[in-house]
Amino acid sequence: MAPEKLYEGKAKIIYSTDDPELISQKFKNDATAFDGKKKGQIEHKGVRNAAITTRLFRVLEEQGIITQLVEQTADDTLLCKRLEMFQVEVVVRNYAAGSICKRLGFDEGHKMKKPMLEFFLKDDSLGDPLITDAHIEELELLTRAERDEIEQLTLKINETLVQFFAERKVLLVDFKLEFGKDSEGHIVLGDEISPDTCRFWDADSREKLDKDRFRRDLGGVEEAYEEMLNRVNQ
Amino acid sequence: MAPEKLYEGKAKIIYSTDDPELISQKFKNDATAFDGKKKGQIEHKGVRNAAITTRLFRVLEEQGIITQLVEQTADDTLLCKRLEMFQVEVVVRNYAAGSICKRLGFDEGHKMKKPMLEFFLKDDSLGDPLITDAHIEELELLTRAERDEIEQLTLKINETLVQFFAERKVLLVDFKLEFGKDSEGHIVLGDEISPDTCRFWDADSREKLDKDRFRRDLGGVEEAYEEMLNRVNQ
Repeated sequence: MAPEKLYEGKAKIIYSTDDPELISQKFKNDATAFDGKKKGQIEHKGVRNAAITTRLFRVLEEQGIITQLVEQTADDTLLCKRLEMFQVEVVVRNYAAGSICKRLGFDEGHKMKKPMLEFFLKDDSLGDPLITDAHIEELELLTRAERDEIEQLTLKINETLVQFFAERKVLLVDFKLEFGKDSEGHIVLGDEISPDTCRFWDADSREKLDKDRFRRDLGGVEEAYEEMLNRVNQ
Repeated sequence: MAPEKLYEGKAKIIYSTDDPELISQKFKNDATAFDGKKKGQIEHKGVRNAAITTRLFRVLEEQGIITQLVEQTADDTLLCKRLEMFQVEVVVRNYAAGSICKRLGFDEGHKMKKPMLEFFLKDDSLGDPLITDAHIEELELLTRAERDEIEQLTLKINETLVQFFAERKVLLVDFKLEFGKDSEGHIVLGDEISPDTCRFWDADSREKLDKDRFRRDLGGVEEAYEEMLNRVNQ
């Protein structure tokens, strides 16, 4: 059976496979920012993000985190377990940067007393708004048990990645995760972890090594993604 | 000692009194909406909101809620205990209306499965943003115990007021509360409860009897405030 395009997002295309339990994720070079108002291309991004995600998901699996990844099947393509994705994004902030600075008045680089979790509703038409536990409950996005398990998984992922990146002289400023449920009802880490979905700062110079270079027209965008691929492979 | 103006807000002026433990709140006719972008006057609003707040605070005190109110000293003026106000606003929603419909896609009039509490940061320069428990903790706006006590007080206030208004054929759609600490460290209800800070719908016709008539240019603004004063005094 020919692969069928199931979904095309801003940065990835999801295809069916012969196995109904598996999907194929193709990473694109397309880049968007500010709710799609800014659009562009970042050369080699698809290939680099596929490789970075593969490496990081393997690191997390060594710590007992279940991920969607089965195997990398092409430079820009990952074979993945099909999940029923939750309609929420989880953001972890170790330092303040980006939207939270404007929203709540934090200085960029403010160190959080402890990792701050935020939930956002995945809804492009609403601009992916911040949601509270009360909203999650009213909208029935997660049960209380699912919410708490996702919080615990997210904190463990953060702990693992903070250390992994510290060893590579990278500050993990913040990042976004998406989870889903597999056919057996397990909560599984999905989507990607890459410079598209994280803020990475060089630990010494605090130079930005992520999509903020694209968002803010800082130049050296491709080089930052290449640098991060090199560092995760150290 | 002549009263000194301590603070002038959008709808009230706070004056000092001879007693350092007491302040005087004068209710104004000034009305603003949409973060101050829309401005106007609502005739007799000051007098009516002072009377409505007095009545509602007395009703709440009968149920054991401690309020800031000492006594009404003029048509538009309340003598109040001085509080150290928390830098948060608490919103209770029994039905969806206003900002939450745009923010999360609820239809206006959607009945919440249970009263929904939201916390907002009191900061005009940031537009009073929605905050989560994680933000409250990081910004040290409330201790966990204060947050939980405020939640319990708010739910009790909501229960009392929903019933009070139901007996007067009014649907309490949503409302905003502000709390502070008195000199003994008790958490006390402050500010006001009025058509400026609540959404009231006639229970039968669902006609709006609150500041939405001003916000949305529906006409009959003064009449709505007068009607609500009459209903609370039934």
